[in-house]
Amino acid sequence: MKEIAKLMNYRESVRVLDVTMRDGGLVNDFYFSDEFVKALYLANIKAGVDYMEFGYKADRDMFDESKYGPAKFSKDEYIRSIVGDNDTDLKIAVMADVGRTNFKRDIPDRAESPVDMYRVATYIHQMPAAVEMIQNIHDKGYETCCNIMAISTAREGDLRAALEIVAQTDVDVIYIVDSYGSMYPEEMARLVESYKEVADKYGKTLGIHAHNNLQMAFANTAEAVGDGVDILDASYAGMGRGAGNCPMELLLSFLKNPKYNVYPVICFIEDHIEKLRSQGAVWGYDLQYLMTGVLNQHPRNAIQFTKEGRKDYAEFYKELVVQD
Amino acid sequence: MKEIAKLMNYRESVRVLDVTMRDGGLVNDFYFSDEFVKALYLANIKAGVDYMEFGYKADRDMFDESKYGPAKFSKDEYIRSIVGDNDTDLKIAVMADVGRTNFKRDIPDRAESPVDMYRVATYIHQMPAAVEMIQNIHDKGYETCCNIMAISTAREGDLRAALEIVAQTDVDVIYIVDSYGSMYPEEMARLVESYKEVADKYGKTLGIHAHNNLQMAFANTAEAVGDGVDILDASYAGMGRGAGNCPMELLLSFLKNPKYNVYPVICFIEDHIEKLRSQGAVWGYDLQYLMTGVLNQHPRNAIQFTKEGRKDYAEFYKELVVQD
Repeated sequence: MKEIAKLMNYRESVRVLDVTMRDGGLVNDFYFSDEFVKALYLANIKAGVDYMEFGYKADRDMFDESKYGPAKFSKDEYIRSIVGDNDTDLKIAVMADVGRTNFKRDIPDRAESPVDMYRVATYIHQMPAAVEMIQNIHDKGYETCCNIMAISTAREGDLRAALEIVAQTDVDVIYIVDSYGSMYPEEMARLVESYKEVADKYGKTLGIHAHNNLQMAFANTAEAVGDGVDILDASYAGMGRGAGNCPMELLLSFLKNPKYNVYPVICFIEDHIEKLRSQGAVWGYDLQYLMTGVLNQHPRNAIQFTKEGRKDYAEFYKELVVQD
Repeated sequence: MKEIAKLMNYRESVRVLDVTMRDGGLVNDFYFSDEFVKALYLANIKAGVDYMEFGYKADRDMFDESKYGPAKFSKDEYIRSIVGDNDTDLKIAVMADVGRTNFKRDIPDRAESPVDMYRVATYIHQMPAAVEMIQNIHDKGYETCCNIMAISTAREGDLRAALEIVAQTDVDVIYIVDSYGSMYPEEMARLVESYKEVADKYGKTLGIHAHNNLQMAFANTAEAVGDGVDILDASYAGMGRGAGNCPMELLLSFLKNPKYNVYPVICFIEDHIEKLRSQGAVWGYDLQYLMTGVLNQHPRNAIQFTKEGRKDYAEFYKELVVQD
């Protein structure tokens, strides 16, 4: 049980990172209007959010630019068209997937870019490629994160080895990523403990990225920050792939640092998020995501179920269990 | 942090109580079709649920019987029309509000009734009336619970005194009720500790009833069971007043006792709950409930906001904060 004094107060080192456009972009193929993005940028500034993630740095040789909105590629000129020189306290982040980013060609020196931080997303078997990428991007002057995905299916020994490898790079932040939304706060507490051991040894900061398959995205984030995790991912109305993420409005209501302000988040949701939903973007907790979460599976089948407008939950459950 | 061995195993004493008709009835004025109720009864039996709450035992002198469905009054003949002699392992519960139940007139001896348990819901200032009611109902042969409501606004000293009073009755179960859905798991852990002290002293069982204003209904229930609370309230698809309750499908997926089975819950939701929603019943997490939860207020204003179909969340937030 955490000390009550700690819960009434706040830790200066905590930071909030808005993933609405990046994880949310997976829902609408990154087709956000400039009006939406500008309003989101302003809302983040007013709300005291620390980082805004613009999207992915996808390799245009692998992904057809005509089939996605600009946030899929997060070109510097696109970001500049929204934020100008970004003369604010809000930092700009972009996600770069290992194996799907031409980082040597597409990421310039930080001095030339509006981007402050790159988040390198990797599977555990790609660690050497992740390390190369982190080092290259760090050497260009950026803050870097390493987001090791799908850890709920990784062996503990492999995970420990991967953490040791990445902690010995110049990476700034190591993320705990519950890709499948399959974790309960009790497990989160244990996982944070094992990450924290390595992070403390090498002087790294920890981050948390949660999914809401079991309605635990916010609960796991609250657990993690209580256990010493500093960088917290959230999105407006929880917008994100499948069951979505930790809702920004809940997180900012929970954090005690007076620099955070939930009111601009409420205004943004009222003005912009409901419109996205009415245009057909679908995300959030539903039975199909509970099922893949409980079964500790990638949500791809549940996303397909959603896309097809299926409502035969019982049949879907049988399909999953038969495959399992 | 809980022991991992405890989390992989289960506690025999844990029981699940379905509140779909009672708390859910607050959403649709208790108008459930007999077909719905029969299917729910069968689903609960198949799912291994331990108690099914049929509704309230409302005083018909106070409430007009023509304005509510039968679950508002939970007459024995109504319950019998669904369950017959209920020759199953599923027990039947009914809620009786202090000050709104004519328990002397309306509750017969248990030998004559299909009901197994009465849950006495009380505010903290009504404890002596609650005690009288508990004793009367206990003496008639029923299992009894005491659900002390709105504790998040009660003084700790008052709550301690109330617990001492009720623990000295013949009540079987004392409930932790987060009426406003305003609690975080950290607070829940502390609250369980204080309830448990009294419960252990007098040999009472503890129960938990959570609301989902902060998307913490399931997280708080999981926290509570980990801390030693045995009787867990949940409802199908979280159906319940305002932001709703702990979803049955999440709870049964989480509990490890092999007697619980989530598949009948999924089937019931597919066949019956979506229909209720399409008929206009509205519940579940939304911004207005977050706001009353964070502000630790009764959800009545948020419910009104929902009823009126309002979507001006920012204006509503200002209204609440001005009143606060």
